[in-house]
Amino acid sequence: MQTLKEQREIAMDGRRPEKEKDIDDLPKNEANYTALTPLWFLKRAALVHPHRRSVVHGSIQYTWVQTYDRCCRLASALSKHSVGFGSTVAVIAPNIPAIYEAHFGVPMSGAVINAINIRLNAPTIAFLLQHSASTVIIVDQEYFKLAENALAILKEETQTNFNPPILIVIKDESSECDPKNLQYAEAKGVMEYEKFLESGDPEFIWKPPRDEWQSIALGYTSGTTSNPKGVVLHHRGAYLAATSNIVVWGVPEGAVYLWTLPMFHCNGWSFTWTLAAICGTNICLRQVTAKGIYFAISNHGATHFCAAPVVLNTIVNAPPQDTILPLRRQVNVMTGGAPPPPSILSKMSQNGFRVTHVYGLTETYGPSTVCAWKPEWDNLPPETQAKLNSRQGVPYTALEGQEVVDTRTLRPVPPDGTTVGEIVFRGNMIMKGYLKNPKANTQAFANGWFHSGDLAVKHPDGYIEIKDRLKDVIISGGENISSVEVENILYQYPMVSEASVVARPDTRWGESPCAFVSLKEGVVGEFNEGEIADDIMKFCREKMPAYWVPKSVVFGPLPKTATGKVQKHLLRAKAKEMGPVKTSKL
Amino acid sequence: MQTLKEQREIAMDGRRPEKEKDIDDLPKNEANYTALTPLWFLKRAALVHPHRRSVVHGSIQYTWVQTYDRCCRLASALSKHSVGFGSTVAVIAPNIPAIYEAHFGVPMSGAVINAINIRLNAPTIAFLLQHSASTVIIVDQEYFKLAENALAILKEETQTNFNPPILIVIKDESSECDPKNLQYAEAKGVMEYEKFLESGDPEFIWKPPRDEWQSIALGYTSGTTSNPKGVVLHHRGAYLAATSNIVVWGVPEGAVYLWTLPMFHCNGWSFTWTLAAICGTNICLRQVTAKGIYFAISNHGATHFCAAPVVLNTIVNAPPQDTILPLRRQVNVMTGGAPPPPSILSKMSQNGFRVTHVYGLTETYGPSTVCAWKPEWDNLPPETQAKLNSRQGVPYTALEGQEVVDTRTLRPVPPDGTTVGEIVFRGNMIMKGYLKNPKANTQAFANGWFHSGDLAVKHPDGYIEIKDRLKDVIISGGENISSVEVENILYQYPMVSEASVVARPDTRWGESPCAFVSLKEGVVGEFNEGEIADDIMKFCREKMPAYWVPKSVVFGPLPKTATGKVQKHLLRAKAKEMGPVKTSKL
Repeated sequence: MQTLKEQREIAMDGRRPEKEKDIDDLPKNEANYTALTPLWFLKRAALVHPHRRSVVHGSIQYTWVQTYDRCCRLASALSKHSVGFGSTVAVIAPNIPAIYEAHFGVPMSGAVINAINIRLNAPTIAFLLQHSASTVIIVDQEYFKLAENALAILKEETQTNFNPPILIVIKDESSECDPKNLQYAEAKGVMEYEKFLESGDPEFIWKPPRDEWQSIALGYTSGTTSNPKGVVLHHRGAYLAATSNIVVWGVPEGAVYLWTLPMFHCNGWSFTWTLAAICGTNICLRQVTAKGIYFAISNHGATHFCAAPVVLNTIVNAPPQDTILPLRRQVNVMTGGAPPPPSILSKMSQNGFRVTHVYGLTETYGPSTVCAWKPEWDNLPPETQAKLNSRQGVPYTALEGQEVVDTRTLRPVPPDGTTVGEIVFRGNMIMKGYLKNPKANTQAFANGWFHSGDLAVKHPDGYIEIKDRLKDVIISGGENISSVEVENILYQYPMVSEASVVARPDTRWGESPCAFVSLKEGVVGEFNEGEIADDIMKFCREKMPAYWVPKSVVFGPLPKTATGKVQKHLLRAKAKEMGPVKTSKL
Repeated sequence: MQTLKEQREIAMDGRRPEKEKDIDDLPKNEANYTALTPLWFLKRAALVHPHRRSVVHGSIQYTWVQTYDRCCRLASALSKHSVGFGSTVAVIAPNIPAIYEAHFGVPMSGAVINAINIRLNAPTIAFLLQHSASTVIIVDQEYFKLAENALAILKEETQTNFNPPILIVIKDESSECDPKNLQYAEAKGVMEYEKFLESGDPEFIWKPPRDEWQSIALGYTSGTTSNPKGVVLHHRGAYLAATSNIVVWGVPEGAVYLWTLPMFHCNGWSFTWTLAAICGTNICLRQVTAKGIYFAISNHGATHFCAAPVVLNTIVNAPPQDTILPLRRQVNVMTGGAPPPPSILSKMSQNGFRVTHVYGLTETYGPSTVCAWKPEWDNLPPETQAKLNSRQGVPYTALEGQEVVDTRTLRPVPPDGTTVGEIVFRGNMIMKGYLKNPKANTQAFANGWFHSGDLAVKHPDGYIEIKDRLKDVIISGGENISSVEVENILYQYPMVSEASVVARPDTRWGESPCAFVSLKEGVVGEFNEGEIADDIMKFCREKMPAYWVPKSVVFGPLPKTATGKVQKHLLRAKAKEMGPVKTSKL
């Protein structure tokens, strides 16, 4: 060992940085800095568990080494068609292996994946294809004509500027759609996905991001508003969101994950990448049915799945012959996308599901807030548990800032469970921004926070609870009414399957609540709708302030997005069409 | 929705970036980018589980909100003494709450924590204090005189340049050391740690790193070599290493972690920060004994701990009255720091411990390679399992590159389980560099890889297995002998408790293996050492090539570092002192 004197001499030798800087004066180099990317998780999974099931779809089973091979081929084949850094590749497919592969293969070519909601119509898809400047479209055979129609619209609108994207069609054995779709596509010279993969080189040197801020995915907001915005996500955020899913949900290495949640919804809440990080198994589900979910649990050993509350509703209301209750072992369910009614949480729990409630947006890579369960809740009555668990909760480990703020002053609201403010976020799980939309970016990122547009309270324990979307608040006689709170009470009415409450114009109060309700099958019996509506209003009067009580109740199925979100803007339009409620003076 | 034409017009409006760039042209802002830091995990734990046990030490129990409060106070108190960005604070303490708090409180002041091995001697500590330029020393009462002696040496060597660091002494009720130590320190006007905390402000606005490359910790290599090097780690790496521990080990939220591994060893393999990320509970253990470990399992519900193989040895060889076998539920053990002999792995597993074998260095934030268990190993014979599990394995999720390369060509060795090369790393878990040591940095980071100095083979399944430290290889008659392989066989000899093999000069072969062995207590019986040595050599001849067989066997306790690493350089010196083996021609 050097003596202190020698050490001092070494230290004095040459131009030595000032004392304060020594400890930080060590630059990055090739060996100690790598751009964060979830693509590495796939390479690692193929190295660590090459022969473990990666993706299961009906009779098809891939291993991680096969999935890696297929993704390399996809990246290679795309590269041969000039796809690379700065390109966007659209995918229109349900939960089948190809869309999983695209979440790696597309960015491995350097490009950005734009997974498109399959339930959109052709004009909207035309808009997205144009806006995203997608140069390749990978489409499931069932949606081939939809894509073709979208391109026809695009061609007509853009005329001589039209650069037709390359189409790749996916043949899926499990699809119940007319097999002629595929023949039709192939007759037009469209390449089939498997043949496209064959044209790729499995030894392709895939492209890690040039820096971790590079874009990895583009997703359009789900369309509860009329103007879709393109949410751009980056490699760093995808890595951190994927890892944070593991930390907050306690997902073990090798978990078996069931794809009920569409992968086109925020990249499956970033679980596409999470599954590679834990070297788990993806069980695909083309059609979400209660039967399909229970089958995956009993036959594939599914341990985890994510689903919107509407899917949980399907699960708990499934006819007994479609279920395998009681579950042989606990199944972990993550739910979000809309506030889950406590009654549904309670039933899920009774059936043996462990429900973790999360909250997030396309702009936050999917869930970024979790209602972290506390051991001290274990011994509470089920209703209390469900009520606590229906709150949105606390930030993910990768979301460094979360507040509920007064919309004017931007100051945090007191944690009193009463004062309503807007939820704002800050941290590494926040999108890069909206594509080609500087105005929306300025609004969304005003004052150094991302503005969620959701209204919430903060409870004394620090957990936030959503009261409404900013635009879903009903303002009646100057008082704010939370549509969510009215809905939660409607769900307690025994015959109600689903409920959504919006503002209807009101001659006296400006607006008043209007309830849209779907009833459970076969429960109506001898009653007519008018009688049930009266009884619902009576029920409400017992449970809520008078001004919250819906003045009109409309029966029928609720319009929804592909991900189970009720499209309130359609209901609002309907309520408006109905004309104002004529409330007489009391 | 805008029409495509409108959209096109918007797109054409103003200076629009070229098409390829749109998707990436979204800069960072305050809302969507935060420097990664594990300090955030502490703030989050205090928010999410404020009343959960954070740190338990004898009769002391802190909650996460208390630990957060104490760390803020520590950061504040340090700030009042001019500690901030660029400063280094040394800590000399065993596993007690204060050293856990320092892992957050010190960086929350902007400074770097230098946790010093308590088993070092005063001259070495003097060297570290000088080299690290520590301005504050937080020292446990038991080590106060050691620190004082180190400072005396430092003062003498530096003379008029001596800037005495501020001393803070920790009173620890559980310490068995002479309480006069504390009185002695206080009589000298040294502030006690609790009083120091009281001087701090719990509302202190702690300092997040200015950027994530900022240094967070400094740790000196453990001294199996003679010249300690200061390994500098950064916030980004600490965040990623802490998270990666969770992903590869499957550590659940709220786990109860027992501190057998010293926190001064690579910041407790980054588990100091991991525990905050999972809002778990830290159980402190001032003295590592089998009894203490079993007590923590049965009385505190410890579910996880990390330990060097030598500690596992203590656990499996503990007298029955000190154990609580069989365990009521599985306890997870992570082991590393030295290659664990398969026989010990096998015994641990028989006793109900699930052992995860990891490998890493101070330079890699602790473990960075894991012997990921495969379900297909479940049904193999225990000996085969232990053999597979004694390999070092595959990279952590946060280690993006790991290879075994030919030391001359730097080309990867074939995965044949036979060809030996050097382990090299690349990725986000690699240190910033060595402090004030450009020469060592140039060597360590040569050719874009971090060079571990460990020799290994790569098996056909991609798992690496260490054969030796580069400098521990014994070269006998031109043939390389792996000291680890000889040791593994010695461990199979029933009376052997511990074994270490080094090179001894040899008149004929240049070097030959010399075994240092400690025997299990009470097993020797009527045999004398000479007889046992002969029998060991006979045993070896049956199990290994003749040239591997130790030509001399020396009995006695093995010299070790604080973390249980055998100090081979001392044994090598001893073997040299013994003079060359006089091997006659065969």
